[in-house]
Amino acid sequence: MLKNIFFICCVLIAQHGFSQEHPNLILTQQGVKDIKAQLGNVPLFDATLAQVKEKVDAQILKGIDVPVPKDMAGGYTHEQHKLNYLTMQEAGVLYQILGDEKYAIYVRDMLMEYAKMFPGLPRHPQERSYARGKLFWQCLNDSVWLVYTSQAYDCVYNFLSKKEVKYLEKNLFKPMADFLSIETPQYFNRIHNHSTWGNVAVGMIALVMDDEALIDRALYGIKGLKLDAGKDNDGGDIFVEGQKAGFLANLEEPFSPDGYYTEGAYYQRYAMYPFMIFGEALQNVKPEVKPFEHKNGVLLKGVDALMNLTDKDGEFFALNDSQKGMSYYTSSLVSALDIAYYYGDRDPRLLSIAQEQGRVQLDQTGLAVAMDIRDGKAKPFEKKSILLRDGADGDQGAISILRSTKNDALTLVGKNAAQGLSHGHYDKLSISLFHEGHEVLQDYGLARFVNVEQKNGGGYLKENKTWAKQTIAHNTIVQDETSHFGGKYDVGSLHHSDMYVFDVENPDVQISSAKELNAYPGTVMQRTTVMLNNASFEQPVVLDLMQVTSDKKHQFDLPFYYLGQVISTNFVYNKYDTLSTLGKDHGYQHLWKEGEGSSKTGEAALTWRSHNTFFTHTTATSEADKLIFGRIGANDPEYNLRPDPVFIVRKNTDSALFASVLETHGKYSTVSELSEGAFSSISKLSVLKSSVDYSAIQITMLNGDEFVFIMSNSDASKTKKHELNLNSKTYSWTGVSYFKKQ
Amino acid sequence: MLKNIFFICCVLIAQHGFSQEHPNLILTQQGVKDIKAQLGNVPLFDATLAQVKEKVDAQILKGIDVPVPKDMAGGYTHEQHKLNYLTMQEAGVLYQILGDEKYAIYVRDMLMEYAKMFPGLPRHPQERSYARGKLFWQCLNDSVWLVYTSQAYDCVYNFLSKKEVKYLEKNLFKPMADFLSIETPQYFNRIHNHSTWGNVAVGMIALVMDDEALIDRALYGIKGLKLDAGKDNDGGDIFVEGQKAGFLANLEEPFSPDGYYTEGAYYQRYAMYPFMIFGEALQNVKPEVKPFEHKNGVLLKGVDALMNLTDKDGEFFALNDSQKGMSYYTSSLVSALDIAYYYGDRDPRLLSIAQEQGRVQLDQTGLAVAMDIRDGKAKPFEKKSILLRDGADGDQGAISILRSTKNDALTLVGKNAAQGLSHGHYDKLSISLFHEGHEVLQDYGLARFVNVEQKNGGGYLKENKTWAKQTIAHNTIVQDETSHFGGKYDVGSLHHSDMYVFDVENPDVQISSAKELNAYPGTVMQRTTVMLNNASFEQPVVLDLMQVTSDKKHQFDLPFYYLGQVISTNFVYNKYDTLSTLGKDHGYQHLWKEGEGSSKTGEAALTWRSHNTFFTHTTATSEADKLIFGRIGANDPEYNLRPDPVFIVRKNTDSALFASVLETHGKYSTVSELSEGAFSSISKLSVLKSSVDYSAIQITMLNGDEFVFIMSNSDASKTKKHELNLNSKTYSWTGVSYFKKQ
Repeated sequence: MLKNIFFICCVLIAQHGFSQEHPNLILTQQGVKDIKAQLGNVPLFDATLAQVKEKVDAQILKGIDVPVPKDMAGGYTHEQHKLNYLTMQEAGVLYQILGDEKYAIYVRDMLMEYAKMFPGLPRHPQERSYARGKLFWQCLNDSVWLVYTSQAYDCVYNFLSKKEVKYLEKNLFKPMADFLSIETPQYFNRIHNHSTWGNVAVGMIALVMDDEALIDRALYGIKGLKLDAGKDNDGGDIFVEGQKAGFLANLEEPFSPDGYYTEGAYYQRYAMYPFMIFGEALQNVKPEVKPFEHKNGVLLKGVDALMNLTDKDGEFFALNDSQKGMSYYTSSLVSALDIAYYYGDRDPRLLSIAQEQGRVQLDQTGLAVAMDIRDGKAKPFEKKSILLRDGADGDQGAISILRSTKNDALTLVGKNAAQGLSHGHYDKLSISLFHEGHEVLQDYGLARFVNVEQKNGGGYLKENKTWAKQTIAHNTIVQDETSHFGGKYDVGSLHHSDMYVFDVENPDVQISSAKELNAYPGTVMQRTTVMLNNASFEQPVVLDLMQVTSDKKHQFDLPFYYLGQVISTNFVYNKYDTLSTLGKDHGYQHLWKEGEGSSKTGEAALTWRSHNTFFTHTTATSEADKLIFGRIGANDPEYNLRPDPVFIVRKNTDSALFASVLETHGKYSTVSELSEGAFSSISKLSVLKSSVDYSAIQITMLNGDEFVFIMSNSDASKTKKHELNLNSKTYSWTGVSYFKKQ
Repeated sequence: MLKNIFFICCVLIAQHGFSQEHPNLILTQQGVKDIKAQLGNVPLFDATLAQVKEKVDAQILKGIDVPVPKDMAGGYTHEQHKLNYLTMQEAGVLYQILGDEKYAIYVRDMLMEYAKMFPGLPRHPQERSYARGKLFWQCLNDSVWLVYTSQAYDCVYNFLSKKEVKYLEKNLFKPMADFLSIETPQYFNRIHNHSTWGNVAVGMIALVMDDEALIDRALYGIKGLKLDAGKDNDGGDIFVEGQKAGFLANLEEPFSPDGYYTEGAYYQRYAMYPFMIFGEALQNVKPEVKPFEHKNGVLLKGVDALMNLTDKDGEFFALNDSQKGMSYYTSSLVSALDIAYYYGDRDPRLLSIAQEQGRVQLDQTGLAVAMDIRDGKAKPFEKKSILLRDGADGDQGAISILRSTKNDALTLVGKNAAQGLSHGHYDKLSISLFHEGHEVLQDYGLARFVNVEQKNGGGYLKENKTWAKQTIAHNTIVQDETSHFGGKYDVGSLHHSDMYVFDVENPDVQISSAKELNAYPGTVMQRTTVMLNNASFEQPVVLDLMQVTSDKKHQFDLPFYYLGQVISTNFVYNKYDTLSTLGKDHGYQHLWKEGEGSSKTGEAALTWRSHNTFFTHTTATSEADKLIFGRIGANDPEYNLRPDPVFIVRKNTDSALFASVLETHGKYSTVSELSEGAFSSISKLSVLKSSVDYSAIQITMLNGDEFVFIMSNSDASKTKKHELNLNSKTYSWTGVSYFKKQ
C-alpha cells in the first residue's frame, strides 16, 4: 500500500511539477494520513468504507452517463445526475484513501462530460421553479450537485493536469458558480435553506479554486443588489428590503441561539449538511472565519437541537412542511453529527447515535467518531424535556418538548414559535403527541411525495397550501373557520407566539405555557400543557388547557387528530348517511363531516386504540358544544391526502377554556387476545375557572380521587402568592400554578 | 431438592396411605422424572419455567380471588376467572416440577372456592349466548376453564385428601361436566369448535376422575338425543339431524385429510389446543384410542397445515371470521407444536418455529423440543406453495397458497373451499395477497374486537354479519349487488367450490384454478391465478383471470381491497363532492362511493404505495366498464369498521373475463427519500379470448416484450393438445395452459 502511494505521489509530482495543498476541503492531507494509518482497525469506519467501495465499484462498471437534462424529480435524468454527484464525491474519497487511480479517472472523465455539456445548456426545460437550474429543474439541486462535486474535484485535483484544471474551471465550475449566484440572484440572495445550498455550493468550489471574490460572495451575498420583491414556489418572499445575504447571514437569521432552525426539523436536517460541510471546509481552508464559533457555536447547538427534535425512533417531529419518516438516520445527519463531534467538545452522547446510524463520514471526523466508539466512549443520548427558542435572538417563541420521565414513553411537542419562513404552517400553539415513537395526536406534515414523479414530479402538491398549511389541519384553535392570520404569509411572518412558562424542574408536573395574541386580532389564546405523573394514573397523562378570550362571540374549533380505531365514547353521536364537507375554505373543504354529538354530562370522553395501546381523551364540554367526527380526504381529486380521522370540539362563545386530559392506558395483544386496562380512569372533568387571569380544572377519578389544577395566566412569577375562591373553596399557592390531590 | 421431594412423597403417602397414578393426564410421572433430571441444562425449557414461576408467584402473592360471575368478556369477573384457570394450570405444573407445596396449596384453595360457589350458581346473568355458561357468559369459556383446571387438578391430585377429592368431584367437577353436556346439549352435541372445547373439557376431567361414562360421552357425544333445530349466535346450525357428535366426530368432520380445518386458520388455531391436549391426555391415559393415528394422523397434519396458513411473519391468513394479527406465537400453538413434534415424526422444521416462539410447554413434549433445539437439530421451515383440501373427505374444494420462489416475498391465498361452518364468509374464489408479511390485497377478516369489553363485550359485532361476511367485503365477484347464495347460510352450507387445477411444478409459472357453480345459479365463475417469474418483470407478478359466464346479463363487481396510498392511475376518474353509499344491502351499504372513472385505452392501471413498496394493478377493461373507488365505513354508527379503501371493476354483461396483472415494483425510503422503480412495466393488457372453454390474455411491456397466457377452462388434462386461433394467430400447446413470450 505505502509503496503504491509513493508511486502515485511521484507520478503526480512528475505530472504537475508541484505538490499542491489538495485535498484540503473536507479530507485533508493529514486526515488521509491518519485514516490510512488506522485502516483495518476501526470497525465502523472500515465497514462504511467497504460499503461505499462496493457501491462505487458497481457504478464504475456501469460506465459514465451524463444525460441532457429533461425530467422532474423522480424522473430519469434527475435521478441520474443525482447519482452522479453522489458517486463522484465518494469516488474522490476512495481515490484518496485507497490510492487506486481508477476512482480519479472516473471522476475526471465524468467532470469532462459535464464540462463539455454545461456551456451549451439553457435553463432546465421544466418551468415550474422560481429559479430554474440547468442540470435540474431548480437551482437548489444544481447547488447540491456542486456541493458534492466540489469535494470530488478537490480529491482528484492533484491527479488532473493543469490543462484539465483550467478547462474544468473555465467551462464548468466558474460559470456554474456565477449561474447560481449573479445570474439567479432571487435564489442566491435570500434567507432560506435554498440559498444556503447556493451559498455553500459557490463557497465550496471557490475554496477549491482559491477564488477570493467568489468566497466573499458565498459568505456575504451579492452586494448592492436591488431586486423586485416576489414570491417563490412555496409563497415565500424572495427578497426583503435591507435583507443581508450569504452564508453567514443564513447562519445568523434562521438559527435561534438554541440552535433551532426556524423552518423546522425537516428542513433543518436538509440544511444541516451544507452548513456543517462548509463549516468543516472553512475550518480547513480559512480557519480565521471560525465557523463553529459563530454566534456562540450555533452550528454545534443546531446538531444537538436536531437530536432532540426526534421521537423515540429518531424520527423528526413534523413541524411545518415535513415528510414523515425522516430521521437522524439520514446521511446528512451522519455527516453533521460526525463534524459536530469532531469540532465540538466530543460529546460522548453523540457516539451512541452514531452507533445507531451504523456508518460514518469518510474523513477525519468520521474516523474520530469510529475510533472513539471502538474505544468504548459512547454514552446514551437521553432525551429530556427541552425548550428550543425560535428567532435569531431567541425571542420569537419556542418549540417546547415535554417528555414523560417514565421510560420517555410519552412526548408532547408544542409549536409556540414564529412562522417558519415559506415552509411554515399556520398553527400557532398546536401540539402533537407521541407514545413509544408512534403518533397519538398527529401533526399532518406536508402534502407531498418527495421524489415520487407521478405526484407532481415529487414537488409540493396543491393540497399542501389548501390543506397541510391551514390551521384546521393541526391540533390547535380555529376561529370562525378561518386560518391564523387569515392564512396570509405576509401577516403571519410579522408575528410569533410567546412563551409564558416553561418549567420542568418538577419531573412529575412539567409545564409549558404559551400565548398567541396576533393570530386572530381581538382574541387571546393561551395554551398550557402539563405532563403529569401521579400514582393515581396508570401512566403519565397530559393536561391540555387552551384558554381563548375574545372581544366578541366566535365559533372556536379545536381539532384533535387522534390516530387509531375508536373504541368508545361516553356521549351520544350521530353518524351521517351521506357525507359532505365540514366547510368551504381554509382547509375545511378537505374534511368530511362523518358525525356529530354532544355530551350532557359535562365532559366528553373518546377512547381509541392504536398500536395495541388504549388512549382516552376527556374534554370538558357543555351540552351546547358540538363534538364533531371528521375525516381528511374531501376535495382530493388525486388521492393526495391521507384519510386520517379527527375529533373536533366546537364552542360558540366569546371566551372559553378547552380543557382536556389525555390518558395512555392498558394494552392489547392480538396474539394472546388479552385486553388490559381498556378503560379510562377518569369519571369527571370540570372547569372551575376560565378567564384571562386564571384557568382551573378539577379531575375526578373513578376511584374517587380528586385533583385540582390551577394556572395563573397573567403572572408567571415564581414567588407571587395567589388566592382564589372556586366553588366556595379557597385555594392559596405561590407561583404560576397549583396542582394538588384534594 | 431431592431431599425435599422425598419428604413430600412421604407426607403424601402418609396422608393417603396409597400412591395414585397421578399426574398422568398431561404431565406423567415419568415425564416429571425426566424433566427434573434435565433441569438447568435445557435453556428454552429452563427459561419458560422461570417465566411461569415468576408469573405464578406474583399471583400467589395477590391472593385468591373467585368473584361471583357477572361481566362480559373484557370485564372484571370474566378476566379474573380466565386468569384463575391459567394460573391454576401453571401452579399445578410448578408443584410437580419444583415440588414446592405452596403451589399445590394455591390450587387446592382456589378449587375449594370454586366448589363452594358452583352448586349455587345459576346460568350467567348476561343473556347473549345460545349456551350461557355459569362462570362465563358462554359455555365455551366454562369449558376452557375446565380444560385447564383438569390439568391443575391432576397435578395436585395426590396432594389432596380423599375427602377433598370427593368434595371437589361431587360439588364442582361432575356437576360442571354434566352442565356442559347433558344440561346444554345444543352446545355439546354439535360439530363446531365450541363443542370440541366442551367435549374435551368433559373428557379431560373424566380422565382424571377415571369416569368411564363421562369419557364415553366426551368421545361420542350424548346418545339418543333429539333436539329442535336452531341457530347459534353466529347463525350456525346447532343441530343437524343424523349428525354424529363428540370429540372423535369433531375430529372427523371439520378436518380435511390435509389437516385443514373448515372454519379457517383462526379457529383452527383456537381449536388446536383442545384437540392436541386431549390427544396427549388420551395417549397417556387411554392409548388404545390412538388419537394421533386417527384419520391418518390428521391432528399432526393439522399442525403442519396451520404453519403453512401463515404469512412471512407467522400471522394467519384471515380466512372467514378471523382477527388479524393472530399468529403461531400464540400459546395454543406452542402447545400444539410441541405435542405434534413429540408424538409425530420429530420433524426438525418444527423446531425452528419453536425457537421463534421462544417458549415450550412444560411437560415431556416441551422438554423434547427444548432438548433437540439445544442439540442443534432445528431446520428452517420453508413454506412452499401448497394446496390444502377442504371437507372431511377432501372433496369440498381447497385453500390454495401460491408463494413466489424469489425469497418467498409474495404469497397469494385463494379460498376455493366450503362454507366453513358458522364462521364462514360468502366469498367463493376470493383471493388475498401478501408481500413480505404485509397485506397487499386484504381479506377484511372479522368485525369484532376480541375481549375488548366496550365493543359489544368483546363479542361479534353486528357489522360482522352485515359487512364482514358479505361477498362485497372480499376480493371476489358480486353479481347484482347480492352476496353468494343470497348470503344464506343454509344454502351456502350445501355447496363448495371445486379445484380445477393446482400445478406448482414449474416454479416460474405456478397455477391455481378453481370453479364455483352454485354461488349464483345460472352463472359459472372460474378463477385462475398464476404466480409468474420472468426476467421481464422486476419481481414476481400475479395474473388473475376471473372468467364469469352467465345465462343472462348481470352487473358484476370485482373488488380489490388494496392497502396503501394511491400514487397514480392511467385513467381519468371523478371524485364526488358529497358521498353516499354504493348500495343498500349485502354489505354495499357499508361502502362509501368516493369516485368513479373509466378507461379509454383498454386497460386500467392503479399504482399505490405501501410499506415503501410500489404496486400496480392493471386490469383489462372496456370504456363501458365502471372503475369505482370506495371506502369502508358507511352505516357504521360506532366506528366498528376500518376505513380501508377499495377499487372495484364493474362490468354489465352476461359473460366476461376480468383479467388483471399485479406487479410489485420499486422501493421508497423516507430516510434517503430515494424513489426507485415507481412505475409499472406494463404498457398494455388485452383479453384475446373470453369463453367458458378458454381465457386468453396478452401482456405488452413498456420495453416491447409481449407475453400470451392461455388457460383451457374445460379440460385440465396434462396431455390434451390444444389449438386456438386468436387475432389471426394460431397457438398450439399441450396441457391446461399456455404461457410464452411472443
